Amino acid sequence: MKVAVMGYGTVGSGVVEVIESHADIIPKRIGGDTLEVAKILDLRDFPDDPHRDLFTKDFNDILNDEEIKIVAETMGGVNPAFDFTMKLLCAGKSVVTSNKELVAQKGLELLETAKKNGVNYLFEASVGGGIPIIRPLTQCLAANRIEGIAGILNGTTNFILTMMIEKGMSFDEALKIAQDKGYAEKDPTADVEGHDACRKVCILASLAFGKHVYPSQVETEGITNITLEDVSYIASANGVIKLLGQIKYFSDDKIAAFVSPAVVYNGSQLASVKDVFNAILVRGDAVGDVCFYGPGAGKLPTASAVVADVIDCAKHTERRKIFGWGAGDEDYVVDYRSNVEMPFYVRAKASASEVTAKFSEVKFLSRKGQPSDEVAFITDVMTENKLFQKLDGMDVINTIKVTNY
Amino acid sequence: MKVAVMGYGTVGSGVVEVIESHADIIPKRIGGDTLEVAKILDLRDFPDDPHRDLFTKDFNDILNDEEIKIVAETMGGVNPAFDFTMKLLCAGKSVVTSNKELVAQKGLELLETAKKNGVNYLFEASVGGGIPIIRPLTQCLAANRIEGIAGILNGTTNFILTMMIEKGMSFDEALKIAQDKGYAEKDPTADVEGHDACRKVCILASLAFGKHVYPSQVETEGITNITLEDVSYIASANGVIKLLGQIKYFSDDKIAAFVSPAVVYNGSQLASVKDVFNAILVRGDAVGDVCFYGPGAGKLPTASAVVADVIDCAKHTERRKIFGWGAGDEDYVVDYRSNVEMPFYVRAKASASEVTAKFSEVKFLSRKGQPSDEVAFITDVMTENKLFQKLDGMDVINTIKVTNY
Repeated sequence: MKVAVMGYGTVGSGVVEVIESHADIIPKRIGGDTLEVAKILDLRDFPDDPHRDLFTKDFNDILNDEEIKIVAETMGGVNPAFDFTMKLLCAGKSVVTSNKELVAQKGLELLETAKKNGVNYLFEASVGGGIPIIRPLTQCLAANRIEGIAGILNGTTNFILTMMIEKGMSFDEALKIAQDKGYAEKDPTADVEGHDACRKVCILASLAFGKHVYPSQVETEGITNITLEDVSYIASANGVIKLLGQIKYFSDDKIAAFVSPAVVYNGSQLASVKDVFNAILVRGDAVGDVCFYGPGAGKLPTASAVVADVIDCAKHTERRKIFGWGAGDEDYVVDYRSNVEMPFYVRAKASASEVTAKFSEVKFLSRKGQPSDEVAFITDVMTENKLFQKLDGMDVINTIKVTNY
Repeated sequence: MKVAVMGYGTVGSGVVEVIESHADIIPKRIGGDTLEVAKILDLRDFPDDPHRDLFTKDFNDILNDEEIKIVAETMGGVNPAFDFTMKLLCAGKSVVTSNKELVAQKGLELLETAKKNGVNYLFEASVGGGIPIIRPLTQCLAANRIEGIAGILNGTTNFILTMMIEKGMSFDEALKIAQDKGYAEKDPTADVEGHDACRKVCILASLAFGKHVYPSQVETEGITNITLEDVSYIASANGVIKLLGQIKYFSDDKIAAFVSPAVVYNGSQLASVKDVFNAILVRGDAVGDVCFYGPGAGKLPTASAVVADVIDCAKHTERRKIFGWGAGDEDYVVDYRSNVEMPFYVRAKASASEVTAKFSEVKFLSRKGQPSDEVAFITDVMTENKLFQKLDGMDVINTIKVTNY
């Protein structure tokens, strides 16, 4: 079966490598057929690449090739990936992708177009890199009402936080090392401000609860305000700080979804996820908590998820997978600040008596070198709006949500 | 769509409960149709059960009901489950099961019969209870050459070991509590001797590598020889003892598979799996390590996995899933003792100099109250046969494998 790859960057070249290096096992997984990379779309030249004869700069070469039934889109970004994907689906080709930005922004239209044309649009690689999560969520947990999801969805920020927690590095030092290792971009905004995690939250929420959630609906806070002082206080409470995407189901017409730093206690499976690894914890009403752990990015892990989707398309040539979600709406994702109750970590310039005058039940934390005019504590359970009302008038340095995952 | 349930024990009654309590969401997951439990097979009477009108004691009532297209077999044991399942598959009904003993012993024949008759035989619930593992392994990781698998596959033994590690209880005390809590049977042999984990290893190995592995081919050692002294020495090396099922791929004609206690270092995702939870770590050549964590047993978690398979069958009424394995053979699973190299933990009545005379490179461990004539150490990497050669003549108290997962 002929396959095209669009975008020969890290993931795209990985896709070609995985298909070729697994030529012996792929037919067994498909049920007979082989996969052949027939064309590669990229505007750049790769004169020394062994696949040089397969390259094209003209999208129409792929669109009009009737033998190509499956296309892997690993270009990234919304444009022109959206336009290309729409055309391919309309032409009766299945498309698989690692492009989380596109799925988060345009998934609904693409899935509807795929359905209308009797083909598949699959995106296992768009969340959690190589971690199997889309199928487990939609198939294996199909007999559950999903109550909530919490995930460490961005490897770069998890690496930075791990360095802060384990090596006592500052955010800036840790970011520098992440950049040196190639984990963080020169402009690290999309990672450290939580935008990348936000897109993945959108995809998970859309899949789990059936309505499209857009990035603009997901309140997103990054990790740039996290300091070693916070890390140290939270360690004294047997916890760690992680950048979490959290989704909470209230009803079919109401969910909350947000990305923020969060305190995770050490008993949680999420607490032991270190370095660039990702993990996604799904809470189902029947199954309880299940957790999926693995490499959240990287050339071959992500490529292996893309190729798994290609294999699935090759198995489903005659028949579409039942898969997707419906339209979202403006009021669907509610403001977590007034709807989700949780404990909070608070650090402030204040006295213990000032704190206990405002909060009936708190747990005070301590750290080495704690100044006499600084307190840190964990509150009992309340909404964030309620928290801020209570904190009114206090000289607050930082607050961090405490997760119940 | 009409469904029958065979065996109304813990899992079977859970299956009925999950189907009924998710009647609103199941049609969305199937793509329209509802599921209706039409018949329940059990030899016992349930006069007060709200489903009393659905019970039958005659298997033929299900076999001959043409409207029943999917049957959940939650009877357990090989007989008469095997005979019943064969007849149902031959009659063109899909069967799903939580019966690991049956799949491990007779999976090949059942899968072949399903294939011949154009129906499905699915068993997500047979490994890891509610944890999605069968689909992730066969679909999401389809673009990987699986290099190995290691799993905490039995909740009862993991509970006992957790009590020993965290509360300092003896094996007997911990077993008593596990029995009081209903985690362990009155006769705990199948759990504590590793037989339950062995069956799950067979299923995982068969799926991952394509040839049936039988329980008799998997060397199995339980946890009854583990003492608090071992726990304490290994804690000093930042490790814990887990009962692991391990599978190692050498070639399509050669794998190793064994169940035994193993030292897991605290960095591993398997080390933080506590109480009755299970986890399965899969090492793929492209993806690296991915790990699946969740409740390995229990009524609703296991039932939710059975019902997910029912839903999948309902989605695939016209078309079989491509899924299964081929015949095994006698020489396929090689003796790990002469084929797998790893470090070992050794405890002995010996002196340090006696040890260093036999092993070039060891790491000595210590514990509180260590007698002056006792040593414990971790060896370098070697086969178990080599280890025992070296230990010859030493007064060895215990040896435990050290895993590289």
